Amino acid sequence: MAGKKEELMRTAPVCGVWELREAIAEHLKSFRGMIVDPNQIVMGAGTEYLYGLLTELLGNDKEYVIESPGYKKLVQIYRQRGIECRFASLDMEGVTVNGLEQSGADVAHICPNHHFPTGITMPASRRYEVLAWANEKDGRYIIEDDYDSEFRTEGKPIPTLFSIDACEKVIYMNTFSKSLSPTIRISYMVLPVHLINLFFHKFHFYSCTISNFEQYTLAEFIRQGYFEKHINRMRLYYMRKRRQVMEIIQRSSLVPYCEIRENDSGLHFLLKLKTLIPDHTIEEKLLEHGIRILALSDYDLLYEENKAHYFIINYSNLNVEKIEHAFGVIETILKKETVKQ
Amino acid sequence: MAGKKEELMRTAPVCGVWELREAIAEHLKSFRGMIVDPNQIVMGAGTEYLYGLLTELLGNDKEYVIESPGYKKLVQIYRQRGIECRFASLDMEGVTVNGLEQSGADVAHICPNHHFPTGITMPASRRYEVLAWANEKDGRYIIEDDYDSEFRTEGKPIPTLFSIDACEKVIYMNTFSKSLSPTIRISYMVLPVHLINLFFHKFHFYSCTISNFEQYTLAEFIRQGYFEKHINRMRLYYMRKRRQVMEIIQRSSLVPYCEIRENDSGLHFLLKLKTLIPDHTIEEKLLEHGIRILALSDYDLLYEENKAHYFIINYSNLNVEKIEHAFGVIETILKKETVKQ
Repeated sequence: MAGKKEELMRTAPVCGVWELREAIAEHLKSFRGMIVDPNQIVMGAGTEYLYGLLTELLGNDKEYVIESPGYKKLVQIYRQRGIECRFASLDMEGVTVNGLEQSGADVAHICPNHHFPTGITMPASRRYEVLAWANEKDGRYIIEDDYDSEFRTEGKPIPTLFSIDACEKVIYMNTFSKSLSPTIRISYMVLPVHLINLFFHKFHFYSCTISNFEQYTLAEFIRQGYFEKHINRMRLYYMRKRRQVMEIIQRSSLVPYCEIRENDSGLHFLLKLKTLIPDHTIEEKLLEHGIRILALSDYDLLYEENKAHYFIINYSNLNVEKIEHAFGVIETILKKETVKQ
Repeated sequence: MAGKKEELMRTAPVCGVWELREAIAEHLKSFRGMIVDPNQIVMGAGTEYLYGLLTELLGNDKEYVIESPGYKKLVQIYRQRGIECRFASLDMEGVTVNGLEQSGADVAHICPNHHFPTGITMPASRRYEVLAWANEKDGRYIIEDDYDSEFRTEGKPIPTLFSIDACEKVIYMNTFSKSLSPTIRISYMVLPVHLINLFFHKFHFYSCTISNFEQYTLAEFIRQGYFEKHINRMRLYYMRKRRQVMEIIQRSSLVPYCEIRENDSGLHFLLKLKTLIPDHTIEEKLLEHGIRILALSDYDLLYEENKAHYFIINYSNLNVEKIEHAFGVIETILKKETVKQ
């Protein structure tokens, strides 16, 4: 960090410290195969802050569409900013173009690389269909939320929407709050050229919301390869944990009552329960045992009548004993039911 | 920082890390005589971000009034967020109640403790008049921007508006970006009880925009007395520099052409030039010599016809030679004029 002293005291441009944007561009190139000019990158103190900037950049008159099931908090954030939020349903390939069409919205905020909570990765064919939707009308954009791509444990990565977008329709978003720690408030977005120009025109007088000290530190952390090391370590850790959990399920007498929906998330998977008990009843019974497991239906924003009983097993920060206990409880709940019948 | 490790990884509440809010409350007590509950303090990555939160909190339908002459950037920030900005004129005691009345606005964003750029400190009598204005109507609020109170070099500090407000009308704002470094993005606001309750009701799902690491570090920095030491050192430094500059003026043959308007700012003062040359002409001539000095008229947001020619001499990061050079140039400009006459 020699000679960094003055830089630490020099006000950074609104889009953030150059060294960090350069390091991120390098990282995106080697990790995601993305060719990005550091000048297109905007740093911000958390994705929520960046969502706010985006709504100001694209105009508050725009309507947004998010995936259902999806990340509820997005609705709160957008509505808080007076933005109308619509919802588009998913199929096994991710958000449906039909859903986007019917929403009537201009901006689609989606997670094509690893959807939460289903874990679906959108195949290339669907990606081009979604890009086609964006290109049908002026003013349409796609926010590609890539929040935890670093933790994909299986399958060869599919090129990002941003990479295959030739018409400046995709805004790429990612955060270090997910890959390093939620208490580190450093996120970024990559804007298409015409939008980054508009960004500087509109926001040149804003200050960057991240302290230089943190930006230079993170830049060095990435440059010197520590970030990559950290990611690899975490992926290995999650993969092992995932296997442990799978083994517990295989061992347990829960097998006949459940089915695991595999996805390449490193942090959670879906457990389908063969039952007639409503999801909320199962959740309540689990809570009685101090276990909080949510059903996929809790993330349904279209309030569709859900047929299958999927539960989200997030094992990222659970210990094995807890998981065994949880499955034990689920088992007794389901067995009681079959006895009743 | 023993035992801080887990805390560094534990997500902070939306209003920020408790230890930091506690340290700030302590600081406000000993430095500003303010009695503040840490629960009323909201941390944010820069004042601009906090202004944004405030407009969302108070409602985007509100109109804001700022001081003229005043801090132009505020207009940009508020207008960017779709907020109508009005202006209120100043007299020697600061913003006039008449100006606030005529603006028709609901929220007054003012700097009563040290106005920029005039350096005026609002006397107690005017403070009560301004509070009376705020209490005349529901939904009226005052944002008390105390951005560089730490650097007051003269005069005994006058209690803040927040301290003498008994009706929950004042929002106090301050930042460490000014007192420590512009590259440190840590600011805070102190909200009246009913507003902090509304804040949690509306924004409970937001994340704090400052990393825990920085918050804990600053908390320790304040607790262990380093912040106070820093402030005292800087005040002394600015006081000395100020004296040097004054001496240069006294020594120079500029004396008959100018008058110094004293204010207790530690960072700049106003130089009144006895001339008929328009301010912008003097500015241009100075620029030809690579000297950038702005006139008070540049901060006039009401575009009133200005009689006196005040120039803002900011000496915080100027070296003495530069200042001597600047005064020399000003002298020649003014002398040329008298020759012409």
